[in-house]
Amino acid sequence: MSETIQAADLTRDIPAEIREPFGAYLLYLGDDALVLGHRLSEWCGHGPTLEEDIALANIALDLVGRSDALLRVAAQLEGKGRSEDDLAFFRDATEFRNAALVELPRGDFAFTIVRQFLYDAYALPLYTHIAANATGALSGIAAKAVKETTYHLRHTAEWVRRFGGGTAESKRRAQDALDELWRYTGELFDEDAVTVALAGAQWIPNPSVLRAAWSETVERVLDEADLAAPAVKHHFTGARSGRHTEHLGHLLSEMQIVARSHPGASW
Amino acid sequence: MSETIQAADLTRDIPAEIREPFGAYLLYLGDDALVLGHRLSEWCGHGPTLEEDIALANIALDLVGRSDALLRVAAQLEGKGRSEDDLAFFRDATEFRNAALVELPRGDFAFTIVRQFLYDAYALPLYTHIAANATGALSGIAAKAVKETTYHLRHTAEWVRRFGGGTAESKRRAQDALDELWRYTGELFDEDAVTVALAGAQWIPNPSVLRAAWSETVERVLDEADLAAPAVKHHFTGARSGRHTEHLGHLLSEMQIVARSHPGASW
Repeated sequence: MSETIQAADLTRDIPAEIREPFGAYLLYLGDDALVLGHRLSEWCGHGPTLEEDIALANIALDLVGRSDALLRVAAQLEGKGRSEDDLAFFRDATEFRNAALVELPRGDFAFTIVRQFLYDAYALPLYTHIAANATGALSGIAAKAVKETTYHLRHTAEWVRRFGGGTAESKRRAQDALDELWRYTGELFDEDAVTVALAGAQWIPNPSVLRAAWSETVERVLDEADLAAPAVKHHFTGARSGRHTEHLGHLLSEMQIVARSHPGASW
Repeated sequence: MSETIQAADLTRDIPAEIREPFGAYLLYLGDDALVLGHRLSEWCGHGPTLEEDIALANIALDLVGRSDALLRVAAQLEGKGRSEDDLAFFRDATEFRNAALVELPRGDFAFTIVRQFLYDAYALPLYTHIAANATGALSGIAAKAVKETTYHLRHTAEWVRRFGGGTAESKRRAQDALDELWRYTGELFDEDAVTVALAGAQWIPNPSVLRAAWSETVERVLDEADLAAPAVKHHFTGARSGRHTEHLGHLLSEMQIVARSHPGASW
């Protein structure tokens, strides 16, 4: 990356009054994509069929590419001379802003797919809104994410229906995954200082509107799959401000070891 | 895979007199791509930069996709009702026909790239010949491989030059990799019963012609990188007839565990 020509200013369309909270919000999105892409890439070479192995790896690639683009903008907004690779490989867990949903261990195939489905159902309306309301580089990045996520959601929703309509075993595994994951979904829609500060500029969707779009998709697919949306009293929160589960630290030490072993290496 | 519509006969262009040896040869090629793709996918999420991580994952995806296509034809030629997934996930190590070069552990980044370079320099003239001389499905599969490998070879050759012209450390690591890998390259060009039986049909290149093309590429790039081609008296052989290093067994147990845990699962 250090050898490529310095990219153009990707931040010039971002209104001055939202640059700071938007930089924070880009870490939400970039870290979600990076951490989930890494979790998914743990399936590389381990899928149940060659075709599914290839499909999961393709989704992982899209997510890592998405994080690369988002963190590049975030790094420019930060203005400290850090690159997207510095953000990916040289931040510690407390500096990551992903939701806890994406850092949970990959689990079995059903857990991986159900988690991916829950994320895709969130990412599609999110990036659709950004593509339509942001301008400049962000609009382009979001439009690419919409195109990718449309495909991902079709793939994961199809699997969720297949789990539900498959064997007793596949249905049980999918329901177990839902039961475990559900309390981590609320954090995606938390209103916090960052989303409140961004409300006026309309670059990002209102969290409650986003939640409604997400619920509509998730409930419809679960209904078709004859799976039940669990009832959860309290949802997990705090990861977006750096209070992560212990799983993120393990994931990062895996993910960052090569880059950290050769800091600044030109190879 | 089991739910997709049965594919058309991909083998109909293959001349009757070479169907048996050609089926064996397709396992050479398909297993090379599958095993190397798996080794490369071990880097998923562990590349030195996001960009390189994405590049390696893309190459791994191409290789797994290539193996999927080749093993599908091989399975049809075999005519025992097995699918490409059966060949990938339900054969034991002694039934695999990949060269030992591709099964060696991934090593460090230099080892991975140098091995990939040595393979790419072999794959490009190989698939170029098949694309030009075979007909039907094989010609199409080979043409896709040529397109992909042209890009892969450009990427890996560029890295080899960068290693050689980089730091003393990067040069030493690349030379160490070459020294370790060199004795496994001869097997790619062994004349055996399979290649001899296929010589008349001209669907595959003559091994010595293939070796000459490979040598030309490898020597040119090593020369540009100021790296030395090692001298090796005896090269490793036997993997193509099922006598593998112990590394393949470990790789397969990793790769096959999910599919074997749910044999015939419809999920």
